[in-house]
Amino acid sequence: MRVAFYGERGAYSEQAAYELFGASAHLIPCRFLTDVFSTASGKADYGVVPIENSIEGAVTQTYDLLLNSKLQITAEHVLRISHCLIAAPGTDRSSIKRIYSHPQALAQCREYIEKLGADPVPFYDTAGSVKMLSSEKPADAAAIASERAAKLYGMDVLAKGIETDKHNYTRFFAVSSRAAKAGNKTSIVFTVKDAPASLFHALNCFAQNGVNLDYIQSRPVLGKPWRYNFYIDCEGESAKGNLKEAIARLKEETAYVKVLGTYMKARHGVV
Amino acid sequence: MRVAFYGERGAYSEQAAYELFGASAHLIPCRFLTDVFSTASGKADYGVVPIENSIEGAVTQTYDLLLNSKLQITAEHVLRISHCLIAAPGTDRSSIKRIYSHPQALAQCREYIEKLGADPVPFYDTAGSVKMLSSEKPADAAAIASERAAKLYGMDVLAKGIETDKHNYTRFFAVSSRAAKAGNKTSIVFTVKDAPASLFHALNCFAQNGVNLDYIQSRPVLGKPWRYNFYIDCEGESAKGNLKEAIARLKEETAYVKVLGTYMKARHGVV
Repeated sequence: MRVAFYGERGAYSEQAAYELFGASAHLIPCRFLTDVFSTASGKADYGVVPIENSIEGAVTQTYDLLLNSKLQITAEHVLRISHCLIAAPGTDRSSIKRIYSHPQALAQCREYIEKLGADPVPFYDTAGSVKMLSSEKPADAAAIASERAAKLYGMDVLAKGIETDKHNYTRFFAVSSRAAKAGNKTSIVFTVKDAPASLFHALNCFAQNGVNLDYIQSRPVLGKPWRYNFYIDCEGESAKGNLKEAIARLKEETAYVKVLGTYMKARHGVV
Repeated sequence: MRVAFYGERGAYSEQAAYELFGASAHLIPCRFLTDVFSTASGKADYGVVPIENSIEGAVTQTYDLLLNSKLQITAEHVLRISHCLIAAPGTDRSSIKRIYSHPQALAQCREYIEKLGADPVPFYDTAGSVKMLSSEKPADAAAIASERAAKLYGMDVLAKGIETDKHNYTRFFAVSSRAAKAGNKTSIVFTVKDAPASLFHALNCFAQNGVNLDYIQSRPVLGKPWRYNFYIDCEGESAKGNLKEAIARLKEETAYVKVLGTYMKARHGVV
């Protein structure tokens, strides 16, 4: 089994891919989210991408990629995120002036970074910033990433659990050209008609068929300012029972509908 | 009139503040969004902040700040965004290796940057990146910002309109401790009860009172993974007629409701 994941080796997406597909899977790092989708459409069987963080919110680029991809969501996974301050062996914490990481990780550790009096420097990836420091070995810089990334690149962990809010979880999707066989959760994207109360009429399709909505997220339609794609997570299987009925009604009430996948809901690990 | 805006002098928010409040207003630059809210709560009468871009989507930090602020939204404004490539006088376009700007502006000009073969470097602000280059004058770097920013810092415009999608608009809010007197549009945030179909029951309050929803945006509730605040833009005045009824019902159906402001809808300038 070949599984593409977002980020460098040691990224949180790699951990999610490992927990989803086991130790025997061959994991392939991808620098950009779009590469995960193209790799999973070709030489890999699956891709693993972050979709939402419980603090920062939606990973909007993943939503935009799901809209235009032929891949289906086949699984959901939730990971508890705990960030470490990581530096080259022998680095003294008091000498750190710059801290590299993905902008979301920097935002999640803002209080710790401010207390340290260091400058946050955005980098394309958490584990990628550790990899970069491990080759350049600056005396005044550190990275924020997982403990796994520190071990992988032979770096020191100077502090653990430096995120402001400990209720920090990231939700991932596995995507594939082979749809999951069954599931209890479905993701759908739709665009409403340009008419009054059109969003309400769309959501009414679910309510009238007794389908529970877990989540709704809006994203702009490219080239059409102030028009939106609405992403819905709901209970049920797209090809069965109430949800099948709701989707049939939705196609009548909206301008565009696409089922993104039916899959098993993750055990959330939420306290 | 004192008006705080997001970013350095020459920022798009400054242009929005100028168009909203006129040439006689005293405009105050603020490096962080949170500073606009604190300044507008104290020494300034108003603050001007971006809320949504027609390509990138919601400015999520503004939503989070509106939730916890005592300021009300008092006006909406829409600006056509046209980005320029800006460098120190005499810089040759072929020598540019790095391009500094706000991550959203870099994303909007991705195709142009790739064609030029330059590295995008995230910076906290569009105009701020021009200001930085104007003092450091590197031979191999440029910035992406407004034409206004180039003039202000005495820099050259090497190219205009370099954004990929020309349907590029940013929507701004003016916020103030003094509520607007009247309006035809209202923004509301609510949190649903932890019960089945709770989002549907909340939206039903608007539909049953004949209130049109323009927009819905969800943001995570801090410290409560997979619980959301829903932001709604709708037609009408919060203290009058159908919308007043809808809000009264919404308070019964949800766990939390806050009216963020009633204001005049912007002329969108959308083609």
